[in-house]
Amino acid sequence: MPNTKLSRKYRPITFINVSIEDIFWEPRQRANREHTIPIEYQQCRDTGRIDAFRLNWKTGMKPVPHIFWDSDVAKWIEAASYSLATHPDPQLNTLLDEVIALIASAQQPDGYLNTHFTVVEPEKRWTNLRDQHELYCAGHMIEAGVAHFQATGKRNLLDVVCHYVDHIASIFGTQPGQKRGYPGHEEIELALVKLYHATDERCYLDLSQYFIDERGKQPYYYDLESVTRGEDPKAYWAKTYSYMQAQIPVRQQSEVVGHAVRAMYLYSAMADLANETGDNDLLDACRALWRDVCLRKMYITGGIGPSRLNEGFTNPYDLPNETAYAETCAAVGLVFWNHRMLQFDCDGRYADIMERALYNGVISGVSLSGELFFYENPLASLGHYHREPWFDCACCPPNIARLLASLGQYVYSQNDDEAVVHLYIQGQGKFRLGEQPVVLRQETQYPWDGEVNIHLDMEQPTSFGLKLRLPGWCKNANLSVNGTYIPIEKRIERGYVCIHQVWNPGDMVQFIMDIPVERVYAHPEVNQDFGLVAIQRGPIVYCLEQVDHDIPVSQIILPVDSPLSFEFTKDLLGGMGRITGEALVTKTDDWKDTLYRPGKPGSHVCQITAIPYFAWDNRSPGPMRIWLPER
Amino acid sequence: MPNTKLSRKYRPITFINVSIEDIFWEPRQRANREHTIPIEYQQCRDTGRIDAFRLNWKTGMKPVPHIFWDSDVAKWIEAASYSLATHPDPQLNTLLDEVIALIASAQQPDGYLNTHFTVVEPEKRWTNLRDQHELYCAGHMIEAGVAHFQATGKRNLLDVVCHYVDHIASIFGTQPGQKRGYPGHEEIELALVKLYHATDERCYLDLSQYFIDERGKQPYYYDLESVTRGEDPKAYWAKTYSYMQAQIPVRQQSEVVGHAVRAMYLYSAMADLANETGDNDLLDACRALWRDVCLRKMYITGGIGPSRLNEGFTNPYDLPNETAYAETCAAVGLVFWNHRMLQFDCDGRYADIMERALYNGVISGVSLSGELFFYENPLASLGHYHREPWFDCACCPPNIARLLASLGQYVYSQNDDEAVVHLYIQGQGKFRLGEQPVVLRQETQYPWDGEVNIHLDMEQPTSFGLKLRLPGWCKNANLSVNGTYIPIEKRIERGYVCIHQVWNPGDMVQFIMDIPVERVYAHPEVNQDFGLVAIQRGPIVYCLEQVDHDIPVSQIILPVDSPLSFEFTKDLLGGMGRITGEALVTKTDDWKDTLYRPGKPGSHVCQITAIPYFAWDNRSPGPMRIWLPER
Repeated sequence: MPNTKLSRKYRPITFINVSIEDIFWEPRQRANREHTIPIEYQQCRDTGRIDAFRLNWKTGMKPVPHIFWDSDVAKWIEAASYSLATHPDPQLNTLLDEVIALIASAQQPDGYLNTHFTVVEPEKRWTNLRDQHELYCAGHMIEAGVAHFQATGKRNLLDVVCHYVDHIASIFGTQPGQKRGYPGHEEIELALVKLYHATDERCYLDLSQYFIDERGKQPYYYDLESVTRGEDPKAYWAKTYSYMQAQIPVRQQSEVVGHAVRAMYLYSAMADLANETGDNDLLDACRALWRDVCLRKMYITGGIGPSRLNEGFTNPYDLPNETAYAETCAAVGLVFWNHRMLQFDCDGRYADIMERALYNGVISGVSLSGELFFYENPLASLGHYHREPWFDCACCPPNIARLLASLGQYVYSQNDDEAVVHLYIQGQGKFRLGEQPVVLRQETQYPWDGEVNIHLDMEQPTSFGLKLRLPGWCKNANLSVNGTYIPIEKRIERGYVCIHQVWNPGDMVQFIMDIPVERVYAHPEVNQDFGLVAIQRGPIVYCLEQVDHDIPVSQIILPVDSPLSFEFTKDLLGGMGRITGEALVTKTDDWKDTLYRPGKPGSHVCQITAIPYFAWDNRSPGPMRIWLPER
Repeated sequence: MPNTKLSRKYRPITFINVSIEDIFWEPRQRANREHTIPIEYQQCRDTGRIDAFRLNWKTGMKPVPHIFWDSDVAKWIEAASYSLATHPDPQLNTLLDEVIALIASAQQPDGYLNTHFTVVEPEKRWTNLRDQHELYCAGHMIEAGVAHFQATGKRNLLDVVCHYVDHIASIFGTQPGQKRGYPGHEEIELALVKLYHATDERCYLDLSQYFIDERGKQPYYYDLESVTRGEDPKAYWAKTYSYMQAQIPVRQQSEVVGHAVRAMYLYSAMADLANETGDNDLLDACRALWRDVCLRKMYITGGIGPSRLNEGFTNPYDLPNETAYAETCAAVGLVFWNHRMLQFDCDGRYADIMERALYNGVISGVSLSGELFFYENPLASLGHYHREPWFDCACCPPNIARLLASLGQYVYSQNDDEAVVHLYIQGQGKFRLGEQPVVLRQETQYPWDGEVNIHLDMEQPTSFGLKLRLPGWCKNANLSVNGTYIPIEKRIERGYVCIHQVWNPGDMVQFIMDIPVERVYAHPEVNQDFGLVAIQRGPIVYCLEQVDHDIPVSQIILPVDSPLSFEFTKDLLGGMGRITGEALVTKTDDWKDTLYRPGKPGSHVCQITAIPYFAWDNRSPGPMRIWLPER
């Protein structure tokens, strides 16, 4: 059925009104708060990223403030602000104010704010939007300013970024004397929509729309600015502006191309603008792009962008496992975008992708301790790839930190007469329905168990619809309200079970999803997974890690009929589901002195243990694989 | 049994005394002669590689003579000379003399000969052996001079290279005032052994030995010359001198590392020197290195060097298919080295590798027409990889040209009382045994058929041993002499069937090898081939190419029991064996709107056609794969 009303029918419940108190996410949020966020601050400090705002760099000094350093500090501020909002911390509050004061001190009289282009290459300000990340850094600073304002009510960073954006709006646009440029690395577009909501200043939305509208028009701005710099546009290293989704205007785009993180940030902004302006073409483009990425170019983990060369997309169904780039930031971006798409129609397809990325390819990016990170998230390893404490290009650690700190906002949505549960996470969400405050309280061991008990609290009987997501992976579920069984078949709308009724204080909804161990296959056109099988249970994709096996995990074959069983294991990695079963391991003792031979390799029965993919490389280093040959 | 006599027990029959008149190689030699060699000359001409020897380049002119251009011309001379020796061609003879005269005119009074470092960067002569290919170019020019001398008896290029080598010998060595350098790209070492044989000048062998002995000693020469150039040795891009096999002295090397072509040229020279000097340690190193590459790091095609990053080796059993680099030159080098190792003991293991590379990963490097080339030889393609007319770095086309033009030398060996047949190729080989000229004439349709009839011609009865290679892939063979069956079991020595007797003029030996279609498996530690099967028949590895199929070749599964049958197909690609059979193709029509799902993909029976791997990408472009999932 076509969607006739374009604007979003739903709005997320802000993370401030959501508590997370479960066995899965709460420990990760805690590690994020207690380890990741402090570590990131320390790294920003130690590497000179924060001190760069002192603007005391002089020629010859090391380190040289890098063009995207500011964004790392901004994302740390954003993460720390979200954390502060749900877990007050006076020390962190003070620290944030100190860093913000330093940033404010670096703002130029005209509003400009960028450490590199203030002290290192001031003459190059706004001369190379294609490569130099100025507007990207601005975007992250805007998001930081908005987040800090939301968390604390303080305008100390918000005012700085407004001043900066006023400056940017004076530079870029269609008026005479303005540059008709747009960012090489998208990010500011979605940030400006946030700033619009924080300030109610329409000009910020207009600037976002200008960047979106201008993108990909011919003659290409990047060509023109290259010539202005005295460079041959043809010498551009990436050869094509599809690298940053600027090869054609965005409304004409239907194929996901180029750098994956840039794509996700762009599409998120497009979805936001479609909502704000009712722009049918923008939303149609988003839907076509969504089909391309989610039906042809996404790993089973929700990782996207297989290639290291462009940090991005290649051909449809090209999903190599060992060499998967699948940048953590790109999976984070996929969550951002799908969350935005989800609010239009509450279509479970978007929630399914959001959940897939969250439970797999996003949280694989940080160790369980919150102290080590993956930039790339391959789906197989020969044993040479490991988590690291930091990266020179440090976009991923603070990106996952800001997502985890604000995870609450992804759990619920509402509109005027419906409360929606997207994610099953123990804790509560505060709604306002029919002028009444309503609290939903989930009790669940999800994703280890499929039973969810939802308690409804309110002051008086209230009529509204409760929508519970029936995950795409779930084939059977049982629903009861106050102990009365309710058939769900006719209540399913776009992947959500809907119960419209008058609710009373203390009502209890029980939703039990069957959550069997599943063998999952990739579309046959995914060459690299052809003939292979993956193990999934609920939203969690499992992998075999060498540390659990005496036999080489790379030589395991999964017979098509071997039973696999799940158990939650308290002493595994702080409490973790694991799947065990029988498989075959190939014999190697009869391969002396030969690399190729006729004569099928023999095998013998072995026991296997699969752990969640996101939890790999948290113990002894070694090989890992998700996709297994099936016999 | 340890080999007590170190020097080679066998010597190859020179290609001048071998005719190739078969259905497999003769057309390829003809294409090489009629297309490849003329094309390469024209490319060398058109790109400025030949004109560079005029030394009239001035600053600012384009193109700039490149540091390895000279080697492309040299390899063309070598290929053209070999061709001339077996197929006289007065025009080519004259052309060679013209080019040689031009090269001679570029030689400096002191003997130095290198276009780039004479006109472009004369001040940098011999200042960067690590990166700059001067000794590599010299090596190829030496090989060209020797080949031209062997082919024509003319010394016009030989004298030039002797003069150049005398200069090089004055620059490099252990004497006071000499540079203790050695090549960053090995090549000159094996060339100097050839020059020694052509001239009988021991000093050339000594210089080769010096380069071999000096390699990898500490302090590293490359460190010292970096410092002399004012560069930090640690800034070396490849980080380690294992890139050019100079991390430790060569006699201590047992792991194949770094750039694959460099490795093969080095090991070839090591084998040559071991033979010349009886150096046990050098031969032992060769044998250890051989085990490492041939039992752990070689593709089923004989391709080597999986990684594009170092154009070379990675970890044991790391053999990715789609991204296989497997440079044509590296497979050519593998042939060079194994041919040299083979002459020590006539051990069929070396001939097996030589044959595997020749019939697969070497000749895949040039189209059947001789007009288009592969630099990289992947074992699978999604359809985006194709042959090209030339490369900026053009080492591969002339490398395969010189190999094909001199192919005859790989067919036979002899010692004083044995004649050996390594390769089954219709045509004749001229031996001298017991002071008598002996001609072996093979009649065979090999590799399409396993029957070989060998006619022996000589003037009078002569006693000698005839050794016929029993290929490693062959499980059963029948031998008869003049129609009398001879059991072979007790006559097999290191992979050769040996018949020592008095031979009479007109004797006929019939050797019939069973040559079934085989399913071949990779060692289970080869992660990328795990659970997969390849089709091989005789020495030929087969592949599925899209052009022969209506169904996607990437979605084919080979049932373990499906019959496969071979037929020689006259109208396929100029006459080609092909293998047909039944397989399963996965259904995709029930995959609408999903990329991952539980529920094993269905399949239906389909017909498949496999063609020799070397012949792929000679028709309509499309996907290709060698390794297939087996069910």
